[in-house]
Amino acid sequence: MSVQANDAPSASACFTVQRLVRFSDCDPAGMVFYPQYFVMLNGLVEDWFTQALGVNYAQFLGARRLGLPLARLQAEFKAPSRMGETIALQLRLARQGRRSLELDVACLGAGNDLRWQANVVIVTTSLDADASINIPQDVVEGIHRWQQSQGEP
Amino acid sequence: MSVQANDAPSASACFTVQRLVRFSDCDPAGMVFYPQYFVMLNGLVEDWFTQALGVNYAQFLGARRLGLPLARLQAEFKAPSRMGETIALQLRLARQGRRSLELDVACLGAGNDLRWQANVVIVTTSLDADASINIPQDVVEGIHRWQQSQGEP
Amino acid sequence: MSVQANDAPSASACFTVQRLVRFSDCDPAGMVFYPQYFVMLNGLVEDWFTQALGVNYAQFLGARRLGLPLARLQAEFKAPSRMGETIALQLRLARQGRRSLELDVACLGAGNDLRWQANVVIVTTSLDADASINIPQDVVEGIHRWQQSQGEP
Amino acid sequence: MSVQANDAPSASACFTVQRLVRFSDCDPAGMVFYPQYFVMLNGLVEDWFTQALGVNYAQFLGARRLGLPLARLQAEFKAPSRMGETIALQLRLARQGRRSLELDVACLGAGNDLRWQANVVIVTTSLDADASINIPQDVVEGIHRWQQSQGEP
Repeated sequence: MSVQANDAPSASACFTVQRLVRFSDCDPAGMVFYPQYFVMLNGLVEDWFTQALGVNYAQFLGARRLGLPLARLQAEFKAPSRMGETIALQLRLARQGRRSLELDVACLGAGNDLRWQANVVIVTTSLDADASINIPQDVVEGIHRWQQSQGEP
Repeated sequence: MSVQANDAPSASACFTVQRLVRFSDCDPAGMVFYPQYFVMLNGLVEDWFTQALGVNYAQFLGARRLGLPLARLQAEFKAPSRMGETIALQLRLARQGRRSLELDVACLGAGNDLRWQANVVIVTTSLDADASINIPQDVVEGIHRWQQSQGEP
Repeated sequence: MSVQANDAPSASACFTVQRLVRFSDCDPAGMVFYPQYFVMLNGLVEDWFTQALGVNYAQFLGARRLGLPLARLQAEFKAPSRMGETIALQLRLARQGRRSLELDVACLGAGNDLRWQANVVIVTTSLDADASINIPQDVVEGIHRWQQSQGEP
Repeated sequence: MSVQANDAPSASACFTVQRLVRFSDCDPAGMVFYPQYFVMLNGLVEDWFTQALGVNYAQFLGARRLGLPLARLQAEFKAPSRMGETIALQLRLARQGRRSLELDVACLGAGNDLRWQANVVIVTTSLDADASINIPQDVVEGIHRWQQSQGEP
């Protein structure tokens, strides 16, 4: 399972966001309600596009009428996160296809302990054609620049 | 991958809920925002416990201080669902462990077309001990009764 | 404050929906997180349009490119609602303007005790013109039919 | 209506948070779904407690078993906010009661244009007693320090 891919290529470019676990993220058990983790994961991709790749996510999905739906999701939950904690979300590009991106995501607690990890495949689509499209050129170039800035060959 | 298990054992007990896709479920592309599918999946398990197994879910997580966290999640998204559609969520028990339940979930459109399918492992825990526990007896019995009422051997 | 209007015109048409308080509605205190009440309120208006007025809400906001944004909201919260309860949401039309609808909404527990009440003004808009429009004719007629079927003069 | 109180006491202490409008905040019309504004408002109070008053919000609602439910909410929505925008949320203390705090909140766009404003009354409660309590002393002192640091008499 490609989730394990997280372990191996430690040299690969990594995009990290810190995030406070808020009251509104938590369920009656006082822990993050797991669908909320995927809202965070969506925000992580959003920030990766805008901040790391230099591709404005809001324009991508708005004015440009492109989409980034999920095709596949695998996740393993190791330990709960609780209100008031600061967690880190880390994104690595596992595979760049012609019309899809496979991402490895890890969520860590303050002590670098693993809370959950996921492997997701997102597809680039045209909202108007309602079909997949090749990854747009500015995204391809943004990924290339980001990997180089992170010391990837 | 056990997601395919959905296809084979057509005789297995199945719990189904119909659900209107609401405005609040949808993203700027007019489609269900996928974390919302997992909110629905949680509601499906909630209804399965209370309605099919005869185990009050709210008491299970409230007064009884038990938990049902996810250990693992695998999902494949095949086609989007849009505001105003009625979708069906189907739950089958793929495997009953000592301290966990593995569920196969399928989401279908009105024409019985597959929208997404998932395989999830949920663990029975004690909130106070913060540790897994054996599946409580009333849940074991509820599953047995439910399977028999559905014609499973 | 027009919220009190709920008390007086007991003869007025009332649209009611019953709703289970789910795990996903609740906060770490085990009570409904109040923004979730407004998700329910949005669903109430959705059901009122489609079921009571005969105006398909999803088409209204989708294909017809019309909107129903809130202009004003007043709410009073009297008592919490907890996971597992069934609550009732009641909608009454307080005032029908030319380009807006003022609604009185009450949320009751199983014993008919008031949990919260709200008075909201929603405006009919054109998404493309990004401006308010007269209430569409099918909505006006739907309201008229609904009020008559409920015994209003 | 106390919402207008925003206009007058411009000298009053103000706590401000900047916030990106995310994909997950927006509805099929591409605008912030208004219940999401109240999730943001809850986060604003959370940050005000922890950052401005020096009272750890997560401990307040967690370990200390205190609550901050809403008693009353009035809001006016002036203009929509769209995906990709950065909005500012401003909090001012309108009135400090014995067991409640009345807050004026304004949400502004990048050009300082008003998107919505709200007046909310939150009550300090004990979760275990399920009843209101006097505002805890550390909150009273935190408010006093904050107001002085902001140049209030």
